[in-house]
Amino acid sequence: MTTTPISLEGIFFLAREALLDAGANEENADAVADTVMRAERDGSHAHGLFRIPGYVSSLRSGKVNGYANPKLHSRTPVALHCDGDLGYAPLAHRRSIDALAEAAGNNGVAVLSITRTHHFAALWPETEALADRGLSAITCVSYMPSVAPFGAQKPLYGTNPLSFAWPRPSGPPLVFDMATAAMAMGDIQIAARDGRAVPSGTGLDATGGVTTDPAEIIKGVLLPFGGYKGSHIAMMIELLAGPLVGETVSFASKARDTGDGGPAQGGQFVLAMNPEILSGGDWTAQSEEFISRLNKMDGVRLPAERRYLNRKNTDPREINNDLLEKIQAPLS
Amino acid sequence: MTTTPISLEGIFFLAREALLDAGANEENADAVADTVMRAERDGSHAHGLFRIPGYVSSLRSGKVNGYANPKLHSRTPVALHCDGDLGYAPLAHRRSIDALAEAAGNNGVAVLSITRTHHFAALWPETEALADRGLSAITCVSYMPSVAPFGAQKPLYGTNPLSFAWPRPSGPPLVFDMATAAMAMGDIQIAARDGRAVPSGTGLDATGGVTTDPAEIIKGVLLPFGGYKGSHIAMMIELLAGPLVGETVSFASKARDTGDGGPAQGGQFVLAMNPEILSGGDWTAQSEEFISRLNKMDGVRLPAERRYLNRKNTDPREINNDLLEKIQAPLS
Repeated sequence: MTTTPISLEGIFFLAREALLDAGANEENADAVADTVMRAERDGSHAHGLFRIPGYVSSLRSGKVNGYANPKLHSRTPVALHCDGDLGYAPLAHRRSIDALAEAAGNNGVAVLSITRTHHFAALWPETEALADRGLSAITCVSYMPSVAPFGAQKPLYGTNPLSFAWPRPSGPPLVFDMATAAMAMGDIQIAARDGRAVPSGTGLDATGGVTTDPAEIIKGVLLPFGGYKGSHIAMMIELLAGPLVGETVSFASKARDTGDGGPAQGGQFVLAMNPEILSGGDWTAQSEEFISRLNKMDGVRLPAERRYLNRKNTDPREINNDLLEKIQAPLS
Repeated sequence: MTTTPISLEGIFFLAREALLDAGANEENADAVADTVMRAERDGSHAHGLFRIPGYVSSLRSGKVNGYANPKLHSRTPVALHCDGDLGYAPLAHRRSIDALAEAAGNNGVAVLSITRTHHFAALWPETEALADRGLSAITCVSYMPSVAPFGAQKPLYGTNPLSFAWPRPSGPPLVFDMATAAMAMGDIQIAARDGRAVPSGTGLDATGGVTTDPAEIIKGVLLPFGGYKGSHIAMMIELLAGPLVGETVSFASKARDTGDGGPAQGGQFVLAMNPEILSGGDWTAQSEEFISRLNKMDGVRLPAERRYLNRKNTDPREINNDLLEKIQAPLS
């Protein structure tokens, strides 16, 4: 696997050009390219340039609206809705997060329902942005069914990621962002590309049998993390990111999808909460002491630690040449 | 193990008498006894009469206020706070759930922060009550540290249960209620009492070694379900049920506790959401089709199914005689 070093700015423009070339307008291309650059910056390669071919496919096929004009409105002072206009999610976020933060900041809690959107990125940018504004946040999405409920052999759940963030008075927030599948599909695709086996329990092959070959799991089905308990969390996410916000669950998202290689249309649930109001004002002493104790335990690493460490490094990133070729091909 | 059949009404009065005898007033005793009876009715023995000796201990020691007068107030229209007055949680719930349901029903979302309470029961009564009022609900609590964060060998998290409920247009809601420990402490205590081994991965002994002996795990430490992902969920619950609502995380709850055998003081986070408002009005078709597909899959059982089945049976329940003796001893 050969690589080429590319600066963070270069990654942004590489992504932006590919998206513009595929038919996105500047506002949409900028929002997606920024998300892609930040994923590479933070070491989240499965959500970085690796996603560009998929983003491009769905712009070219016309499934995703490259000129999307997401519209935010308030159903109540604490129930916001953003219609994504069938575009990629990052522009919908840019137009909604401040209003959500204000609603939760003033009232203690607020929910943002995002519909008619195509989410193809990590979730931590949304929760981290809210935590940077002093709020605790939870978000989840649900798209193509690829995970079998506990006990079953056929997919019904998406990989259904969940992110949570907790604000800290100084320094970056405590954030986790994880698939409720035993492994994220992006990581399985990368393992398949690189020819690496995955741990047993990650998924089943097309006949329902146990396998450690990621290529077989892509043809078969993923399993939820943590047995029936993880399966319950995945089930909850189907309901929160689908019917609760006025969108489809993942089997219906798939049925509507064109199969062009890009992300399906679906919904996103975003909850923001103000600890200042919900606690009555006294919260940082407890949470800081807790995080400090957790951080000091032998064998424990705070969830976003590696991401924050990567972020401090502003050097160029080594990008896979096969991937570069794929991204730049339409430009030549 | 010999047992005695006792009617559901008999279970209620047995619990009520024990609580009154230990110094609770009628309103507090009724609320707890009702929770205990419903646990036995639904087959949740670890939260039924099995808990009475603990409830009684903390009333007798004076740690828990048997004359608690929980007070509800609104910090904002969607941020409710109930001060539990150091009593058991069920009376705080009786005085708060309707107001929470109304706030979420009108605004789309609302949070109830419960502080200065002693929760010693399952969580499904709260989420089910909200789902019966047409809302989706999430609740969690966090008390004594008994679970090691992923990678560690010392406890920092409580067993940190999480319950979620989803309303259904006809029939009882979809509800799960699960410890984020690999196994609930109540179930480990019952396994220890009955001399049954538990699965490997449930916990570590006092030296940090792997064991399947529940008595050794009680002296050692539980593990979270699902590795690092389950550990993240447990961490989130510490923050939601502690600092977010203005209460302590579990290590601080333990430090404050007297060790009298009953539940520690802590907080409870209760979130209620109105899908009618958050979805824009169109939600049941998607969720009912999803639940129906899930229910029809080979090998899958809906989470509350066994509880609802037990509930239909109004026959007397077989109660362990050793337990009965322990409960009735103070009366004789």
